[in-house]
Order: sequence, then structure tokens, then C-alpha cells
Amino acid sequence: MRRGNVPAPIARLRDELARLPGIGPKTASRLAFYLLRAPEEQREALAAAIASLGTEVVTCHICYNLAEQDPCSICADEARDHRLICVVEEPLDVWAIERTGAFGGVYHVLHGVLSPLERMGPDDLKIRELVDRVRAGGVEEVILATNPSFEGEATAMYIYQQLAPLGVRVTRLARGLPMGGDLEYADEVTLARALEGRRPV
Amino acid sequence: MRRGNVPAPIARLRDELARLPGIGPKTASRLAFYLLRAPEEQREALAAAIASLGTEVVTCHICYNLAEQDPCSICADEARDHRLICVVEEPLDVWAIERTGAFGGVYHVLHGVLSPLERMGPDDLKIRELVDRVRAGGVEEVILATNPSFEGEATAMYIYQQLAPLGVRVTRLARGLPMGGDLEYADEVTLARALEGRRPV
Repeated sequence: MRRGNVPAPIARLRDELARLPGIGPKTASRLAFYLLRAPEEQREALAAAIASLGTEVVTCHICYNLAEQDPCSICADEARDHRLICVVEEPLDVWAIERTGAFGGVYHVLHGVLSPLERMGPDDLKIRELVDRVRAGGVEEVILATNPSFEGEATAMYIYQQLAPLGVRVTRLARGLPMGGDLEYADEVTLARALEGRRPV
Repeated sequence: MRRGNVPAPIARLRDELARLPGIGPKTASRLAFYLLRAPEEQREALAAAIASLGTEVVTCHICYNLAEQDPCSICADEARDHRLICVVEEPLDVWAIERTGAFGGVYHVLHGVLSPLERMGPDDLKIRELVDRVRAGGVEEVILATNPSFEGEATAMYIYQQLAPLGVRVTRLARGLPMGGDLEYADEVTLARALEGRRPV
């Protein structure tokens, strides 16, 4: 007697889905099965959206945010205040702040935080690029908007030490964000208020 | 001043992911962002796995399980006991039972349960097809392995009423599965034991 197996196409999709963060094997099976019965256009739209990611998204050479063109629409916008740089961990944080509509400056995306456990040191982040940007002149204030977590605080402190000799004003988002939380999950009002109430480091 | 937006390719993928069951907008954003930074071969493998689902998976015309060929490998296997039919709600349940290695018969997949709320009546399930299969002869026992939930019980009872006049033995999986649970999530030992201890309805 042969054991019946999950058909190979479903097993393949299940295994690929299970590689995604936060998706276990059971969830992966259910999603694969859902997609199998979903309309073909939904499957095709999802497959196309995944496949087109790599070719259509670029990194802005000024702020290191992900964008559709380089420089990104924020860095290219003359109406924004280029003397004010908000430093965030991830592109998702830029979009969270943009949704508040409370910030008119520009950004700098670190692409991570200092984390000895995950072997992320200063050279793995866009910290030197930030220092160069400030050193090039024209920047009056740098807002350190890393997450209110242990690593986010440590990263902010490290960056502050790098920027202090340059004479630029360095601020941190107001405490209004709960410790241990994640900036990306803050509601828009909380995030807007934290931005308004920012204080010098 | 223009607000910076999530690049269109990421927004598109996020929106497609958010259409999947159990994936909210925040999880969809995180997954889209993860995929953006994943190696290109991982993205391509996932996109290909999704796209190939529709063309490579068929329904077995005997048991209505999903398979790579029709009839499926279980129905086509002469070494299995075709006098014993195990009736399940979904293909995932077939694979859960196959993993136990405790069942040597064949299956019948209903593709759902009776549910007035979801407007699933007997004609939406493969119940008539099961009755026809039993009526065609050669079947000695039908194991009703629907989930131990309210709908699963009601569906089993309905099927029992349809099969009783045909003089076939009808059994139900042993209580060992917790009420309100989902067969698919049962561990293999519990499921194997429930199969061994099956009782007449």
C-alpha cells in the first residue's frame, strides 16, 4: 500500500510559504489550499506582485529608503524641509510617519539597529552615510526615531555620539511611545504627538 | 509637499497578501517587506509555486481528493482496501490521516460541511456522489471522519441517514478528538487512536 501524499504543486507552495517569517507549516498548508481554490486571477495577481518586486523597487542613494525611483519622491521634493532629517530603522517606519502627515522634513533609513546578538554592528547600518550627509552641510536637526526598544535606544545613543561633534541639533521622539513597543504599530495620533513633543538628546 | 508613499510594487503585494485568510494589513506589510529583501530565487520559487497550482492539480473523479492525476494514487492503488471508505471534509484531512499510516482504505472528500450560516446544503457537498459509490456495491464500511464540531456532527448524522437504508456499516471516529477541535490539527497518535477505536453510529 502506498501512502497518499499531498500533490507536489501544493506541497511545493506549502514549503515556500512556510519559509516566510511567522508562517508555520499548518498556516502554510491552509494558505496553499486556499490559493488552490481561489480564482485564477487572484493567484496570478499575487504571483506577479511577488515576481515584480525585485525589478521595480530601488534604494534611494540619499536617504536609503525604498522607492520607485532614485532619488525617491521625498528627497526630490523641494517643498520639503531638507534641513530636518528623521532617522528611522526601516522603510516601514518612513511610511508610518508619512501617514501621520505631521512631518515635513526628509528621512534617513538605517536598515536595522545595532544588535550584538544578530551581529549587526555600525558598519552594517547606514550610519556612516548619515554622518557624511550631516557633514556635507545644510542640516540643522536630526531626529532619532529609532524604536523605543533596547536596541533602538542603543542605536540612537551611538548615532548621537557620532553627530555631537558636528554641532548639529539632535533630538529623540517624545516618550509617548510605550517602551518595548514597535514604532510601526503605533497609531497615527500617538506617533504624531511623539513627533511634536521631541526633545534634545 | 508630497507625502511619501509605499512604492507601488510593495503596496500591490501587500494588498494581495492582505486578501489571504488570516493575514491582516500589518502582517501583509511585513511579509511584502521580507520578500523584497529575500533572495531573488526565493521570490521566483514562491511566485512559480503559486502560478502552477491551477494547472497541475486535478480532482479525482472517484474520491474527489485533490491529486496530480485522475484517479488519484490512493484510488488507483490495488493494495488498498476499497471496501472501506473514510469520509472527510477536506483534502487536508486526507493528508492528516495518511500521515498516521493507520488507515489502509480509501477516501471520499465532501469539500465542506453542512452549514446553514454559510449556505452549504447537501447539494453543495459530494454527498450524493458518496451514496452513488456505496450503491454501486463492494463497500462494506463507511467511516464518517468529519470534524468533531457542531457542523461536522450534523453532516455525519445526515450522511448516516442517507446510507442506513443501503445496509452498509457506518462508523464514526472514536471520541478522542476534543469537541470543537479541528481534525487537521490533531496530533498523529490521537488521530491514529481515534481511527482504531471507531464505533458504529
